[in-house]
Amino acid sequence: MVENADRLRAGELVLLVGDDKRTFLLRVMPGQVFETHRGILYHDTLIGKRWGASVSTHLGNPYMLLPPSLDELIRGIKRSSQIIYPKEIGYLLMKMNIGPGTRVIEAGTGSGGLTLALARMVQPTGRVYSYERRADMQSLARKNLERLGLAEGVEFKLRNIAEGFDERHVDALFLDVREPWRYLEQAHAALRGGGFFGALLPTTNQVSTLLGALEGAAFGFVEVEELLLRAYKPVPARLRPVDRMIAHTGFLIFARALLAEPPADETSPPSSPEGQKGADEPRAEK
Amino acid sequence: MVENADRLRAGELVLLVGDDKRTFLLRVMPGQVFETHRGILYHDTLIGKRWGASVSTHLGNPYMLLPPSLDELIRGIKRSSQIIYPKEIGYLLMKMNIGPGTRVIEAGTGSGGLTLALARMVQPTGRVYSYERRADMQSLARKNLERLGLAEGVEFKLRNIAEGFDERHVDALFLDVREPWRYLEQAHAALRGGGFFGALLPTTNQVSTLLGALEGAAFGFVEVEELLLRAYKPVPARLRPVDRMIAHTGFLIFARALLAEPPADETSPPSSPEGQKGADEPRAEK
Amino acid sequence: MVENADRLRAGELVLLVGDDKRTFLLRVMPGQVFETHRGILYHDTLIGKRWGASVSTHLGNPYMLLPPSLDELIRGIKRSSQIIYPKEIGYLLMKMNIGPGTRVIEAGTGSGGLTLALARMVQPTGRVYSYERRADMQSLARKNLERLGLAEGVEFKLRNIAEGFDERHVDALFLDVREPWRYLEQAHAALRGGGFFGALLPTTNQVSTLLGALEGAAFGFVEVEELLLRAYKPVPARLRPVDRMIAHTGFLIFARALLAEPPADETSPPSSPEGQKGADEPRAEK
Amino acid sequence: MVENADRLRAGELVLLVGDDKRTFLLRVMPGQVFETHRGILYHDTLIGKRWGASVSTHLGNPYMLLPPSLDELIRGIKRSSQIIYPKEIGYLLMKMNIGPGTRVIEAGTGSGGLTLALARMVQPTGRVYSYERRADMQSLARKNLERLGLAEGVEFKLRNIAEGFDERHVDALFLDVREPWRYLEQAHAALRGGGFFGALLPTTNQVSTLLGALEGAAFGFVEVEELLLRAYKPVPARLRPVDRMIAHTGFLIFARALLAEPPADETSPPSSPEGQKGADEPRAEK
Repeated sequence: MVENADRLRAGELVLLVGDDKRTFLLRVMPGQVFETHRGILYHDTLIGKRWGASVSTHLGNPYMLLPPSLDELIRGIKRSSQIIYPKEIGYLLMKMNIGPGTRVIEAGTGSGGLTLALARMVQPTGRVYSYERRADMQSLARKNLERLGLAEGVEFKLRNIAEGFDERHVDALFLDVREPWRYLEQAHAALRGGGFFGALLPTTNQVSTLLGALEGAAFGFVEVEELLLRAYKPVPARLRPVDRMIAHTGFLIFARALLAEPPADETSPPSSPEGQKGADEPRAEK
Repeated sequence: MVENADRLRAGELVLLVGDDKRTFLLRVMPGQVFETHRGILYHDTLIGKRWGASVSTHLGNPYMLLPPSLDELIRGIKRSSQIIYPKEIGYLLMKMNIGPGTRVIEAGTGSGGLTLALARMVQPTGRVYSYERRADMQSLARKNLERLGLAEGVEFKLRNIAEGFDERHVDALFLDVREPWRYLEQAHAALRGGGFFGALLPTTNQVSTLLGALEGAAFGFVEVEELLLRAYKPVPARLRPVDRMIAHTGFLIFARALLAEPPADETSPPSSPEGQKGADEPRAEK
Repeated sequence: MVENADRLRAGELVLLVGDDKRTFLLRVMPGQVFETHRGILYHDTLIGKRWGASVSTHLGNPYMLLPPSLDELIRGIKRSSQIIYPKEIGYLLMKMNIGPGTRVIEAGTGSGGLTLALARMVQPTGRVYSYERRADMQSLARKNLERLGLAEGVEFKLRNIAEGFDERHVDALFLDVREPWRYLEQAHAALRGGGFFGALLPTTNQVSTLLGALEGAAFGFVEVEELLLRAYKPVPARLRPVDRMIAHTGFLIFARALLAEPPADETSPPSSPEGQKGADEPRAEK
Repeated sequence: MVENADRLRAGELVLLVGDDKRTFLLRVMPGQVFETHRGILYHDTLIGKRWGASVSTHLGNPYMLLPPSLDELIRGIKRSSQIIYPKEIGYLLMKMNIGPGTRVIEAGTGSGGLTLALARMVQPTGRVYSYERRADMQSLARKNLERLGLAEGVEFKLRNIAEGFDERHVDALFLDVREPWRYLEQAHAALRGGGFFGALLPTTNQVSTLLGALEGAAFGFVEVEELLLRAYKPVPARLRPVDRMIAHTGFLIFARALLAEPPADETSPPSSPEGQKGADEPRAEK
């Protein structure tokens, strides 16, 4: 017996995978039609199909119905700029403690690849504040997220971040901009004490400049790391790395926001821990 | 003015970082005492301190108060077995679409490093089913998660997975066992159609064996990948990779559960999409 | 004043590099003509030109005159098979102690990429014995080496190496064949005691099979290594790795030929070191 | 029957490998004695032994007699400075066309690791000019090479290379110094037209500085490359990369010396190629 949960429902996202390996991402909507040069599929025929099943177009070409991964969603978005790759996104989630409930700022929004991953991972109580200077980019990113049903947890802001961020005490802040060193003061003002700062930069010169600026600002615990992904041909009797790989996506820089200067009251124990008393809504633990 | 959210409260996890770079993970509890050879800290003096601040022991040694990252939690657990590294965990979250709301099986539990990351990321509505054959390992993992306040979303099961998994239609299933190829039938029975299968293996021989078994079982879209992490010395004027790095943690294998054989009713559109009608509780979208 | 040694002479190899970055390898011969779609160059106009100078075709397109590196010679040969890359060749020279005076066997010859490097490096007193089963491949390799003036130190042999090698006591032996484990006995018979064995294999399965066979044969000090070459964009203000790289060329396996069984006379010191007395022509030291 | 060439002779270098994997490099000299805490070996008992054989100390500990590789010689030298690793040396031989007959300059000499490889490879007609500013380093390197019988082809020069090199029209020049950009003019003056320039630098900042300087000097065809060596555990049934690797040895920079400015006579064919006529000793072809 097959449970309902194992069947496609209207409104769900589905990845169609042809036997030519081409994939299409759909949100299944009653009455709609999917068309390629390989034939037509009526969405209504998809509703109620089992996940993992194959369906055929009117020309007889089969498509398999798969739930899309976050990796596939990111690779599938429309883009007009370089996106951050899933390997970097997965790693920064771990290093910057981003998950359900996190309040996180990113800039710039770009095509929204990182935005959608953040939006997905901070659900349902967290929040993504995504800053972008160019209206066209923001519009593209917003459409990408709306298409995936992930725009709700995101506040898109059209802003030159030199003017600062609106938020305070956010848990994490990621800068995917050309000159992140120009915005460290603004970033620090937005982060909670000890909050997570991250950036991605393609050149070593940029990394050096950012490192120098972080030394001068109130950040500590700086790390620079790089991830290399090597794929193998999945042939049991002839296992080997693939011939070519992506050699560079960027350098990841991580740091923590320190207190600019210890406030006077930090030198002695607080006389009464009011901060705790007033906390009638305990925060989800990070 | 400093908001309450920016101050340590009783019950929160805090990472103490000494100026000797040694770190300690504490849950701050009124009345308790933290002791090292570098001096004593009363938890009560930590409550109400600002995150990012420094406190000193009675011997005058400073410790900085930082919110711990998931990366630091994983590296900090007590372990009696090899753990999966954060770079692999972050990546498998992306590839296996694990996030808020996901129902995921893992085996074996081991020391609980992956378990805690999964538990953190599927909050609040998802669920982790963690299978382990050895009672001592399970006990260690359970203590690790309880200490971090992350045990609630996890069902620990003491079981030889050759006997199968209790769950059906789970979104994802990860095998961190020596011979995953022995459990593919059980894994397939537990996964939803198109569900995400993953495994981590240290040797190429194991990878070949698993690849061969996946070909024989109803899995498709197989990938083998490896992540290398390269750290750099974060010195602005002398930027360079560190001298030595971890050269190998394991090969990641990903696949999708296919339908064993297309059921008869898949060849024509379902006469009525009841599956959809009865869905009074729309699932969170993956 | 410019010395004669700094000018092109008839008979020398020259690399012509166009401003479109295309390169051509020529042996400069009086009376000959070089033609491309970018114009004509008379070899006679090249003779006497300074190395590093530019010359123009009758259409005004410039070509720079450079001495070719061994790297460029190897990349430039006509090939009908996968060649071994310069990074592997350079490394195996070091690991297998191949240099002036070395006697080395290789099989198969293939397109002659490794052959030419060996021929160049063992000059003038060493010798390369190059075995190949296919006449067409041997012919191609021979032409490649003759064109570069490097065929003299090479003995090309058309042979299935299952029948064994003619030579004995060679310093080094390299197998670039699909199933090197089939020829270990033959290889051992050809090598001097302690001699250097090497192989290049693309898949992990082949490496495992060869390792198993080496354990059973009289080889020791086995190593498996892999070289990755990462190129950077040479832009001073924007230094970064190039986007894509070759992820795999092959696994290098090195071993040493051991004595199959210690001969009886090895258990006691030789009564008189005759071996040394007869040596009226001291060998060049490796 | 065993040929004489297969037996150790007085004066040869031998690598002794204990069953504890410790190795010792000896030049076998009649009458001398080798001593370790594992026992005594009389050189006279080694002479006439077969290569690849085992001999035992008076305490019964076995040592195998192997011809040393260039890799092992380099790793075995006494050093008071960072050496260049064999993987980089092998590669630069290929890229800089260094082999029998090459005239090559290096600076600084350091402990002589690269010097000995160069000395070995340019035999018998080439020449190594090795510059060093510190007398103690030069002395160490000279001893290292003399011990290996490789000092003959090397001219050691005690000199601050800011003062320039004595040689002209050398084929190749390698700078292993902290600030190679200071000596580009001197390097250019020493190189033949189109000659090979190389350098090794540990930091990206240094690479950027050198790249900028090369742009301003008469060098072209600049490349920046990095080699990573990954070793595998050579166990047939459990093949896997070793746990840790050397993550960084340095960035290799290669370039070609161009003519500073095309001399007037280059615009028309030379009236008579005298350069060629006078060449009564044809150079070995590169």
